[in-house]
Amino acid sequence: MNTILEQTFSVPFRYPVCFTEGLFDPQNTMLADVLRGERIPKVLFVVDSGVADTHPGLVDELRNYSFQHQSVFTLAAEPVIVLGGEACKNDPDLYQSIVEATHLYGIDRHSYIAVIGGGAVLDMVGFAAAISHRGIRLIRIPTTVLSQNDSAVGVKNSINAYGKKNYLGTFTPPNAVLNDFNFLKTLEDRDWRAGISEAVKVALIQDLSFFEWLEKNADALAKREMEPMKAHIIRSAQMHMNHIAGKDPFEFGSSRPLDFGHWAAHKLEKLSNFRVRHGEAVAIGIALDSAYSFLQGRITEEDFARIVKVMKKLGFDLFAPELQGGSLIEGLREFQEHLGGQLTIMLLEKLGKGVEVHEMDEDLIHQSVDLLRTFQEKSDLITS
Amino acid sequence: MNTILEQTFSVPFRYPVCFTEGLFDPQNTMLADVLRGERIPKVLFVVDSGVADTHPGLVDELRNYSFQHQSVFTLAAEPVIVLGGEACKNDPDLYQSIVEATHLYGIDRHSYIAVIGGGAVLDMVGFAAAISHRGIRLIRIPTTVLSQNDSAVGVKNSINAYGKKNYLGTFTPPNAVLNDFNFLKTLEDRDWRAGISEAVKVALIQDLSFFEWLEKNADALAKREMEPMKAHIIRSAQMHMNHIAGKDPFEFGSSRPLDFGHWAAHKLEKLSNFRVRHGEAVAIGIALDSAYSFLQGRITEEDFARIVKVMKKLGFDLFAPELQGGSLIEGLREFQEHLGGQLTIMLLEKLGKGVEVHEMDEDLIHQSVDLLRTFQEKSDLITS
Repeated sequence: MNTILEQTFSVPFRYPVCFTEGLFDPQNTMLADVLRGERIPKVLFVVDSGVADTHPGLVDELRNYSFQHQSVFTLAAEPVIVLGGEACKNDPDLYQSIVEATHLYGIDRHSYIAVIGGGAVLDMVGFAAAISHRGIRLIRIPTTVLSQNDSAVGVKNSINAYGKKNYLGTFTPPNAVLNDFNFLKTLEDRDWRAGISEAVKVALIQDLSFFEWLEKNADALAKREMEPMKAHIIRSAQMHMNHIAGKDPFEFGSSRPLDFGHWAAHKLEKLSNFRVRHGEAVAIGIALDSAYSFLQGRITEEDFARIVKVMKKLGFDLFAPELQGGSLIEGLREFQEHLGGQLTIMLLEKLGKGVEVHEMDEDLIHQSVDLLRTFQEKSDLITS
Repeated sequence: MNTILEQTFSVPFRYPVCFTEGLFDPQNTMLADVLRGERIPKVLFVVDSGVADTHPGLVDELRNYSFQHQSVFTLAAEPVIVLGGEACKNDPDLYQSIVEATHLYGIDRHSYIAVIGGGAVLDMVGFAAAISHRGIRLIRIPTTVLSQNDSAVGVKNSINAYGKKNYLGTFTPPNAVLNDFNFLKTLEDRDWRAGISEAVKVALIQDLSFFEWLEKNADALAKREMEPMKAHIIRSAQMHMNHIAGKDPFEFGSSRPLDFGHWAAHKLEKLSNFRVRHGEAVAIGIALDSAYSFLQGRITEEDFARIVKVMKKLGFDLFAPELQGGSLIEGLREFQEHLGGQLTIMLLEKLGKGVEVHEMDEDLIHQSVDLLRTFQEKSDLITS
């Protein structure tokens, strides 16, 4: 009586992740090359207000670039400026204003949104693009270390809701990711540094030689030298890309190894009302789960000391008062709830190799927090 | 100086499309089989108010089924009733209430929403599921001919916005589609009939033998015989599935052959303020583009007459006054805008074979409308 049909198919995705300097120099054809096609598409530029403030000439550059390459693409409208930073993901009016812009300017599924900004703006605008017409083409132009070496190469977008980070979003690969290193030069020190934590993360769980490279270059990175910054971004982006392509890009399973250190990081961001920025929180989350790995006998004290040392050299704080008290532990449950399925946390087996576990001991987490506090007090003592 | 990395991967999708009778009979394990896994997942049932009204015992059946299969899954909450019909896609509060339910009841990415209803409710609830936690698992339980033989097997969800049908949505395959033929018995005649137009559509563009089968069974279908109804649904669903799996499931290109007759249908639905239902509008849209194909010399008068005859036997009106006047033509532009890229319209080359064209002649469209009106007047004359 019953009939059962089976539907099976695969959807192929392909996009370039490019690195350049002076992306909007009219001589630089990288953006035009990405947009070139049989038809002349419309492009809506959306710019992070933080980037627009730091680069007051940017909107003119965009107009000029578009004018110079008008045989390839046209401006759908004047570039739109949107509030930058995590706050843009908290106010639903903001993503709706981008959705409305696609309606007002007739941005169809073969037109493009090109979004220029930090990870939060890329997330928010990416969400608006993903749900308008069931997916408008998206070009991500990340302007921070964090977005260039990690989030912008990925397939996610999101906004926050109900006080939960990234509660709403989709898995929607971009059509291109164009990284302009020049944007990094104007970052404040905190943001220059913060993103490096994602490279430390991916090195620790996957690649000892990259970790050793980071140890060697930590001082130069902290001193804002461009060459190691560029090298580390390309390497980190490639590792994140390989990971996404290799296993379960849309996270149907319970595993999420690239979220090493992130369960505590997400919670800490919220507990600090986003005083602690994402990259900074990831640094602390990495330190915490490394401490836990050490206290559980998974890695040696020497290994743990090396992790702490490279983080301190990079200039990270490895402790925040919000880690204390009972609220941190809720982050574990929230992390599981967001992912669904079995709790799956990445810890360290050794430097350059992660290991997944399915439970964490509450007491040991508190001991790990204490260990980080002790380190911080010692280091404050030395500094003072 | 520039570095270009290439990201390439495929995302595999797989889901069963099942047909049964008495899905919520505790002895029927189809639903439980789909939900069975290593863990006991939470399931939130969402029910179309039209279905709940026609089946006052349904919510109790769901409770009882869940109780009987509590070793397999648990109810996340009491079943939620939502407004049925196209109106549910117009009010954003409704999809947001489903999103909020996922938050309130802790529905994570490994939990399920099981939505029972017509195509509009499946679209709206599917959208809410797709964007919550970047995708909660979705089981579609379509209750109309139209959703069982066409829309529910597909990969789309949507709501309307800015007066545009399906303006917001995603391409997100379901985890299972479970069709219970018993729901069809309580449909009013209009809805029993309306969905058959999608089968005529897919037969006309792809499969002459199916069209001949429909000619042979049109009277029995019109008389509400269950066996041909079941047979045509399975065949139509399979054809829609093959099409989706075979070519561009997420519609990255400009082609959308399964939308034969749909450019006019979408516009007619709106012009009539949804007095003309989707399936009815598709029947008229098919007749219109068939008339156009005939007037353009693509198909013979005899072929056109066969199309009209089968549609009339099924009980369809093939004309609506809203087709007259200039507004219909706007539907072409809106169809192109939604899809983006080049205008691509499916016409008929012969019975059972479609052909894509990239322009339509406005005068010939008006002549096609006139032809349909003439047929309608003749047929009204015969009836009266």
